[in-house]
Amino acid sequence: MLTKNRLEAFSDGVFAIAITLLVIEIRPPELEGGESLAHGLWEQWPHYLGYFLSFLILGVMWLNHHRILEPARRVDGIVLVLNLNLLLWAVLIPFPTAVVADFLRDGGADAETAVALYGGVILMAAIGFTALFVGITRVGIVDELPPPEVVRAARIRFGLGVGVYSIAFALSWLSPAVALAAHGTMAAYYLTAQSSRLDSASPPG
Amino acid sequence: MLTKNRLEAFSDGVFAIAITLLVIEIRPPELEGGESLAHGLWEQWPHYLGYFLSFLILGVMWLNHHRILEPARRVDGIVLVLNLNLLLWAVLIPFPTAVVADFLRDGGADAETAVALYGGVILMAAIGFTALFVGITRVGIVDELPPPEVVRAARIRFGLGVGVYSIAFALSWLSPAVALAAHGTMAAYYLTAQSSRLDSASPPG
Amino acid sequence: MLTKNRLEAFSDGVFAIAITLLVIEIRPPELEGGESLAHGLWEQWPHYLGYFLSFLILGVMWLNHHRILEPARRVDGIVLVLNLNLLLWAVLIPFPTAVVADFLRDGGADAETAVALYGGVILMAAIGFTALFVGITRVGIVDELPPPEVVRAARIRFGLGVGVYSIAFALSWLSPAVALAAHGTMAAYYLTAQSSRLDSASPPG
Amino acid sequence: MLTKNRLEAFSDGVFAIAITLLVIEIRPPELEGGESLAHGLWEQWPHYLGYFLSFLILGVMWLNHHRILEPARRVDGIVLVLNLNLLLWAVLIPFPTAVVADFLRDGGADAETAVALYGGVILMAAIGFTALFVGITRVGIVDELPPPEVVRAARIRFGLGVGVYSIAFALSWLSPAVALAAHGTMAAYYLTAQSSRLDSASPPG
Repeated sequence: MLTKNRLEAFSDGVFAIAITLLVIEIRPPELEGGESLAHGLWEQWPHYLGYFLSFLILGVMWLNHHRILEPARRVDGIVLVLNLNLLLWAVLIPFPTAVVADFLRDGGADAETAVALYGGVILMAAIGFTALFVGITRVGIVDELPPPEVVRAARIRFGLGVGVYSIAFALSWLSPAVALAAHGTMAAYYLTAQSSRLDSASPPG
Repeated sequence: MLTKNRLEAFSDGVFAIAITLLVIEIRPPELEGGESLAHGLWEQWPHYLGYFLSFLILGVMWLNHHRILEPARRVDGIVLVLNLNLLLWAVLIPFPTAVVADFLRDGGADAETAVALYGGVILMAAIGFTALFVGITRVGIVDELPPPEVVRAARIRFGLGVGVYSIAFALSWLSPAVALAAHGTMAAYYLTAQSSRLDSASPPG
Repeated sequence: MLTKNRLEAFSDGVFAIAITLLVIEIRPPELEGGESLAHGLWEQWPHYLGYFLSFLILGVMWLNHHRILEPARRVDGIVLVLNLNLLLWAVLIPFPTAVVADFLRDGGADAETAVALYGGVILMAAIGFTALFVGITRVGIVDELPPPEVVRAARIRFGLGVGVYSIAFALSWLSPAVALAAHGTMAAYYLTAQSSRLDSASPPG
Repeated sequence: MLTKNRLEAFSDGVFAIAITLLVIEIRPPELEGGESLAHGLWEQWPHYLGYFLSFLILGVMWLNHHRILEPARRVDGIVLVLNLNLLLWAVLIPFPTAVVADFLRDGGADAETAVALYGGVILMAAIGFTALFVGITRVGIVDELPPPEVVRAARIRFGLGVGVYSIAFALSWLSPAVALAAHGTMAAYYLTAQSSRLDSASPPG
């Protein structure tokens, strides 16, 4: 039947495609009369910002996905549905990225709406990750459940993540720029945290 | 030669790409004078509906594809052609999804046509699944044919599925909304059914 | 270093993506005043025709690619370059497909040009296949070279294929419709031939 | 945890998608009154040039990526981050390709800017490759470090590559055509060099 390997391979493919599709939101600029290409490219900076930020976030999601699925020894129906739910939000990310790129420079209410949409999708993905983690760390799915306090600590960590993403989401209406910076900081933090975990988890021997 | 593994890997890749391409049908709204982004995003709800529905349907198709190919111990020419036929309809899904998203809100004959196109492609995929199932449960392709009554029951189940999809297709001309709801219900039902099957099929030991 | 498995996996991914990208050339119709969606969809028939034809051709190419690479026991630089050349033409196929879809109905010189572009890209892919086959059936690349008369027969078969594709290419200027029909016939023929080969090549035992 | 195999599979997927997405930048021409399709297609030559050049460059990158990761026996956090950085620039390539295709024929400052953007992204990827190579040839990551003089020679080779790409980048402002030719020459050189390395590295036995 559906094995964990196959679920991971399908998810890997989806993450790889979503991260690559980000580039099709960056189009050559349409220059107005007399405008130089250099100026037109410069004016598109929100598109580059969105590309970098979403690339970072999807990269971290891909990494996190492996870490979450690692202890599972089999996949049941609940894990499958929770995984599809997570992918649904991850695949959507190029859309709010494009909205932010189009409306960030306008400022005002539209910039707030754009960043809130972005933050909302990220928040749904964070909730999806938490749900998937809870679904996997049930008895019977993992080979050997880590000590309860470890699981509890991890669930708290996920809960905290959802809390911080909720704050970043709410920040959209105070300052779109600060909200985006919060998303970038979160992604950079998770990348660093996951990376150092990699270092300790793979003994050289 | 072409092994079952390779056919599955190719099909998995195609499903992963098709499900991810759904997002490129959702574009940032083009606002009319004075319209807020929030309003423009709201007006695009048929696009979000189409994305969710087609994501669900393609996810279930991917799952179903594994279940159907599972008993096969080799791939012959007929299975190969039937598999390509199924993929042809699955890959097409983003197109009717975009048509529904563009014309559902107009109501009237165009909304009916859009939903009928959607239902027609899904129906062709359902027929493709039935044909693939019949093609695989022939003597010589599967390692050990299940008892005849099990195969017959499964074929009846597939036939019923085609019947229900035909009804959903016909419903398009009565009520596009009801027809879409029927598609969503079918997909949710299959997801649940497949998921619980997963639970029973993978003993923890 | 680069193994045959890795070259095949990369090529499989490229074929899977190219075949799936065909769908993004089919867009919802833009209706003119008073035009019904049904009529608008109908008018797009060259897009559906192009989709079906190119899906068939890319599916056959994917299948053929496996058959050609099957006897190779390793990949050398020449095989690598010849494989990249083949992929370059295969990936390009969605472009002439879109051109045919846009200009076939206009008839006249533009329809001829469109179909000739289509046939030209297919012809280049056929030449690429022949070159890859020759590159692989050299001493040292295959485990055990088939008897010389078998290799010669296969090379003749490839040469004949290139000849027929050249004729189909030339036909574009006589009758675009006949040229497209020739391409469809060729693809259907290869699919059937490959399929029956599958049947004989995989003994059930 | 994250294994080298999984990192390679994800990277392979990303390269395969990026190389295939190049085709969506080539659109059917929009003809002006009385213009023939043949003329319209001809006028698009910068798009074909960009497609061929970027296909070649991404193909070489994919090949080079394998060669660089080959000696690694495990992946640590630094390698992971450096790999994501490299993919970020590789995935971006379809964007400057489209810009070059749109602005090369205009000549003047805009053509220079377009080619400089192209060269800048390639340069960043070359720097990313060098950084990844340095990150992998650290003690503890590779099974057995090659002799120091070999590593030093390889690092010098990478440094030279960055130097040549910097020169090609600077050439954009002297002559866009010469700069593009330099990029094509570099890619062809690397393809040849990698190919012959393949030949010597895979003993037939």
